[in-house]
Amino acid sequence: MGTLETMKDIFNNPNKIIEEWKKDGKKVVGHRCMYVPEEIIHAAGMLPYPTFGTPEPIKKADSYFQPCACEFVRNLFDLALDKKFGFLDSMVLCNTCDAVRHLYNMWDTYVDSVPCYMVNNPQKMYDESGFKFYRMELEKFKKLMEDLSGNKITDESLKKSIELYDETRRLLKELNDLRKRDIPAISGSEFLRTSMASMLMPKENANPLLRKLIDEVKNREIKNADGPRILLTGSIIDNPTLIELVEDMGGVVVVDDLCTSAKYFWYTTKPNNDPMDAIVRFNLERTLCACAHPSEDRYDYLQGLIREFNIDGIIYFNIKYCHPFVYESAIFRKKLEEEVPTLTLEVDHSLSGLGQLKTRVQAFIEML
Amino acid sequence: MGTLETMKDIFNNPNKIIEEWKKDGKKVVGHRCMYVPEEIIHAAGMLPYPTFGTPEPIKKADSYFQPCACEFVRNLFDLALDKKFGFLDSMVLCNTCDAVRHLYNMWDTYVDSVPCYMVNNPQKMYDESGFKFYRMELEKFKKLMEDLSGNKITDESLKKSIELYDETRRLLKELNDLRKRDIPAISGSEFLRTSMASMLMPKENANPLLRKLIDEVKNREIKNADGPRILLTGSIIDNPTLIELVEDMGGVVVVDDLCTSAKYFWYTTKPNNDPMDAIVRFNLERTLCACAHPSEDRYDYLQGLIREFNIDGIIYFNIKYCHPFVYESAIFRKKLEEEVPTLTLEVDHSLSGLGQLKTRVQAFIEML
Repeated sequence: MGTLETMKDIFNNPNKIIEEWKKDGKKVVGHRCMYVPEEIIHAAGMLPYPTFGTPEPIKKADSYFQPCACEFVRNLFDLALDKKFGFLDSMVLCNTCDAVRHLYNMWDTYVDSVPCYMVNNPQKMYDESGFKFYRMELEKFKKLMEDLSGNKITDESLKKSIELYDETRRLLKELNDLRKRDIPAISGSEFLRTSMASMLMPKENANPLLRKLIDEVKNREIKNADGPRILLTGSIIDNPTLIELVEDMGGVVVVDDLCTSAKYFWYTTKPNNDPMDAIVRFNLERTLCACAHPSEDRYDYLQGLIREFNIDGIIYFNIKYCHPFVYESAIFRKKLEEEVPTLTLEVDHSLSGLGQLKTRVQAFIEML
Repeated sequence: MGTLETMKDIFNNPNKIIEEWKKDGKKVVGHRCMYVPEEIIHAAGMLPYPTFGTPEPIKKADSYFQPCACEFVRNLFDLALDKKFGFLDSMVLCNTCDAVRHLYNMWDTYVDSVPCYMVNNPQKMYDESGFKFYRMELEKFKKLMEDLSGNKITDESLKKSIELYDETRRLLKELNDLRKRDIPAISGSEFLRTSMASMLMPKENANPLLRKLIDEVKNREIKNADGPRILLTGSIIDNPTLIELVEDMGGVVVVDDLCTSAKYFWYTTKPNNDPMDAIVRFNLERTLCACAHPSEDRYDYLQGLIREFNIDGIIYFNIKYCHPFVYESAIFRKKLEEEVPTLTLEVDHSLSGLGQLKTRVQAFIEML
């Protein structure tokens, strides 16, 4: 089995990772989203596990949340009520959007099986007062992780964890760079599976696999690379189906600015003797998510992607109803359209209504 | 004209306040919402002006925001695009919800007539790190207000402003207490108009009027007070029509937990020699809004209202689509219904669909 297949297998069966990890009695800490510092969890000897959703329709959660609430959050809550996250020793959320703040209240009230904690990151970026606030919040989080694991987190262990995670980010970016070519070395759906598998795995295992994969694909050229070059952006996509749909319609997805892909690995930490400060600055010196404020920097970053990856068209996927991206897409679409044709699509997280989507994507790609 | 009528007149014609204030060349600073510290604006010699919406349908803003975006925010943006806030020297927003954070981006990009500033309050309450962060943010805001007004804000002037605003809050609460009686002294719609007029007016004028009003109504009994006693809660209601609707259907609205009413005046600042610290603690020691985290304290406060005002039924109004309250109402309804019958209604800010609402409110009140 080639490494691309291995990655696909890990993506399809993440429970194997958990079983393997827990064999030695080690703990697993679930989290949502990328502003939760995984390095602190890892430095305490635990596995940080990004919780994704499933494409199944929501059952129990719909008697708690209203239908206009974010479907991804309802999906997570559904899985929690169904005890599908029973393997977690704790869940960690962070202050991103209205939905996640309230998911915390719901989880804390109704999900007895897994305790939930909230890291209170500021939403304002690049700001001395925010740095100080976040530092204090992370010190509390560090203490909590030490108590949960029974392991002390030293500056040394934290530095090692940061280096390990930075290496994953560097490798994913190196792999992603192979998509800049006229004929990319890896397709959009292959890349998303690889990226998500790397996020789910212990980084000790992910890094050698990624190195091997880069070697395996670097002289490769994907098929059907003569269509328009597409940038995918928007709220979370934790399922390659949407990307496959774009590829089936003839689009060449050359970069996915998603929190399951580029947003995760785009930046690495800056050299810093104080590892906690390194994490603070890493998270507050990048406006990657529409939940962060202000949005100018995220717009500049998207413009950079358009140039670097030679983009012909942008598809902006909004999960119903992810408000930060709904709001952002409105202002960004107006600006982006001045440079590159942009299609904004509202999608169900459960991927119902794919037929209609297909028609709109097809029309867009034919137009390019 | 009785004072109740005077208040109604002020509520209906707030432009008179502005004209009067600006006569001497003094500045007006618009703001949304109650976490913007009005006292700092006032201490700089400017009028803090809470911007409310209008019941008219949205025009221009709907080509910028999607229809599932908060209608109140779209309404404000519409008014701003239409230069209806042209009388403001500056607009101030604060970090409450996804909608307002993005309103800042939109305003900053598309509204040239009025500059916009954002106060970055933390959403986590009761927390030392939050206190420190907010203090730093408020120092920046104070400097900005000094620069805008050309007036230095001293500890003394700030203390005086706090005392003035606390007096407004105490007086509104005293008036509100007259609704605890078996037969309230003031109806729900009368109270909302009075409360909103007091919010709009310079407090130097509001306080004597409120004192006079309390004297005038304290021996009064409203008509039709034999219906069930209703607590109104939910997202912003800046129009007495919804309250009148409940009253017309026979409900006796004895307390409105709205940011145009009880949320505005429920607490006063605590004695503190450092006025900036007083403001920090005032805003971060009360979880009054669904945007604040965690929600436990707000739930306790609602329970207190149920007991204090002897509530028979709760009506929870959600403006479409105010996400913090949509999420909160889901969890709160489940809890509240164990104590008091609760009706959750989704309403248009522009008040279309009143007929349908009427039917649901009528059925609820008959059931009580």
